[in-house]
Amino acid sequence: MTPLPASFHAMLRDRLRARASAAGLDGLLLLAPGNVAYASGWLFSVNERPMGLWVPVEGEAILFVPHLELENALGVAGVQVSTYEEFPGLIPPALWMIAQTGARRLAVDALDARYLSAAQGMVARLDLTDHCLPERTIKHAPELALIREAARFADLVLERLLAQAGDMIAQGATELDLMADCTGHARRALSATHGQTFAGTKMGITASVHSGPRGALPHGTVLARVPQKGEPIIAGIGCSLGGYHAESGVTLVYGDPTADQRRVMQAMADANAATIQALAQRQTCTSVNDAALAPIRAAGFGDTIRHRIGHGMGVEGHEAPWLSPGDDTPTGPGMVFSCEPGIYRPGHDGWRCIETLIVTDTGVETPSRFQSTHPFDARVIS
Amino acid sequence: MTPLPASFHAMLRDRLRARASAAGLDGLLLLAPGNVAYASGWLFSVNERPMGLWVPVEGEAILFVPHLELENALGVAGVQVSTYEEFPGLIPPALWMIAQTGARRLAVDALDARYLSAAQGMVARLDLTDHCLPERTIKHAPELALIREAARFADLVLERLLAQAGDMIAQGATELDLMADCTGHARRALSATHGQTFAGTKMGITASVHSGPRGALPHGTVLARVPQKGEPIIAGIGCSLGGYHAESGVTLVYGDPTADQRRVMQAMADANAATIQALAQRQTCTSVNDAALAPIRAAGFGDTIRHRIGHGMGVEGHEAPWLSPGDDTPTGPGMVFSCEPGIYRPGHDGWRCIETLIVTDTGVETPSRFQSTHPFDARVIS
Repeated sequence: MTPLPASFHAMLRDRLRARASAAGLDGLLLLAPGNVAYASGWLFSVNERPMGLWVPVEGEAILFVPHLELENALGVAGVQVSTYEEFPGLIPPALWMIAQTGARRLAVDALDARYLSAAQGMVARLDLTDHCLPERTIKHAPELALIREAARFADLVLERLLAQAGDMIAQGATELDLMADCTGHARRALSATHGQTFAGTKMGITASVHSGPRGALPHGTVLARVPQKGEPIIAGIGCSLGGYHAESGVTLVYGDPTADQRRVMQAMADANAATIQALAQRQTCTSVNDAALAPIRAAGFGDTIRHRIGHGMGVEGHEAPWLSPGDDTPTGPGMVFSCEPGIYRPGHDGWRCIETLIVTDTGVETPSRFQSTHPFDARVIS
Repeated sequence: MTPLPASFHAMLRDRLRARASAAGLDGLLLLAPGNVAYASGWLFSVNERPMGLWVPVEGEAILFVPHLELENALGVAGVQVSTYEEFPGLIPPALWMIAQTGARRLAVDALDARYLSAAQGMVARLDLTDHCLPERTIKHAPELALIREAARFADLVLERLLAQAGDMIAQGATELDLMADCTGHARRALSATHGQTFAGTKMGITASVHSGPRGALPHGTVLARVPQKGEPIIAGIGCSLGGYHAESGVTLVYGDPTADQRRVMQAMADANAATIQALAQRQTCTSVNDAALAPIRAAGFGDTIRHRIGHGMGVEGHEAPWLSPGDDTPTGPGMVFSCEPGIYRPGHDGWRCIETLIVTDTGVETPSRFQSTHPFDARVIS
């Protein structure tokens, strides 16, 4: 397993050139950070200084960066580099980039409304379509390989948590302690396995661990709280390797699950199965979401739903398409989604499982394996 | 030291109401995450689902959040909460929020150009001014207290690095090992000191450690690289407490500094002094930048400059105003800036020091203390 080669990103840019040409444009100015990373292979740190990538139908691509990033940008293969002095600068960087392209007809994928009128005045045609989106939606084999490997290390965090949590909690460990232990373990393993080959690229593990009533706040802070007997413990894990993301997540139970807790676990398992079935049928994203949430509603947990079933993953941990109301993209091979049914009962408890799913020619592949290898009775911390 | 009380954010919102009224508006719709956090006190996790805060001239403020955040948002004092189903949803959340305000004349601080025309069609007057910016620029005493305390823990990272680096490098420690040790030490101290009082708020330490030629890439990845004798080691530290940020940074030398290295250190010290003098004179931001970089140029290092002298800090680690070309804001009391002269010599080495500076009624206060307490000869790892 190695980082994506420069030839891969050159191929992606050729596909974008073809899209620009088909749309009657001189080229695409990419300003959305995920799009710039996708089409250049440069996994830069995002801040207030915009980076841009000009992908013309004819000629070489140009990476526009602040002077600060000159040496970093010169390491990107297959592109010219042009720098602006600083942010904010005398001219807004987005407008400076539009001028630098020299194009008359171009698409810009992200633009502050404040600059729209000025930008329109600089060109004959300004297209605000994100032409990168349909490309990023369908992953190529080398991208899927990175996602599969990232999923393996997300699973490893959960394996460690399951193995250690019982002893640690008995000794007074808090949510924060559990999170530090299991992420530290997986980070060391990730670094030992891939640290050398992937040196200088983005690689990492993120996690949240919530116990008992805290589990009802899916974006709540992880606390110095000791889980109590009988409580569920939600662990949601993200891993990135070579700039590509995967997730795995589970809700463990500290002690023997009650009948009520088993009903919750069953409803989430049914939601998983419904998601996979709807994806295998290539339903639209919004229909997959409806199908996925139906078993949760049918089990009487409709009022505990707080969010959609999932989101796309790739160069961003959350990216389009969205398995959600408002996204009618048809699903199909090469798409990668999270599937994360959640049941949240404020004041009482919260539950969420997460799988990474890859839609294939013949069905759905699940590179995250923790749930399939750990049936309900194996999700118990004793 | 405690988190900012609800009454503080109510006071901030009253100031924003007055600004909206003076601008002839019905209210301000805040969508920029930093502005929402500033005016609500809610330190939420930023993702693709927009959060909004409506601050009307008359009536109660409304926090607009995705349904997922309902319980988190209900914990915010002094605001009503209104939820949208999901992202992307059938209506773009920003447009839904504009409709929910019922306002005819409003300002929106951040808007995607794609939605501008639709937004304009919904109201009589759409003002794209960020009316929060001048408020955030001038910090109040309780905000400055948090920033001072954050600076103390940023310094602590550097103290630890200086104390441990010699022994650790002798045993083969890499940049990554050094970073993990010194940030871990300061995180434990931060948690022990403030963990209980600030539980559930954002609190953290970020750092970068670059040695030798890697120091020439200010945003380069921290590597599994062992620093070599004679090399400078750049450490740039950020700390946040109660949602407010401070920085401290220094370049240490592994071994006795050479005459060339002392010249570099002197040029950066002169840049620090020039920044403080220009701020004490209340020059404009862009003039402060010019004054700060002049000693670096005078010392013959002009072509090693890669970035502005500094940026504002507050609820965001980097925020306006910017000590940079393109920002002609007059500086004055209550403003907080980083001062971070950098000298980067690609292929050879890199240097950067960072102070947090608070402009006061009588001059400039420096809450980060590492540089003042460690003259050049004390910045040596032996």
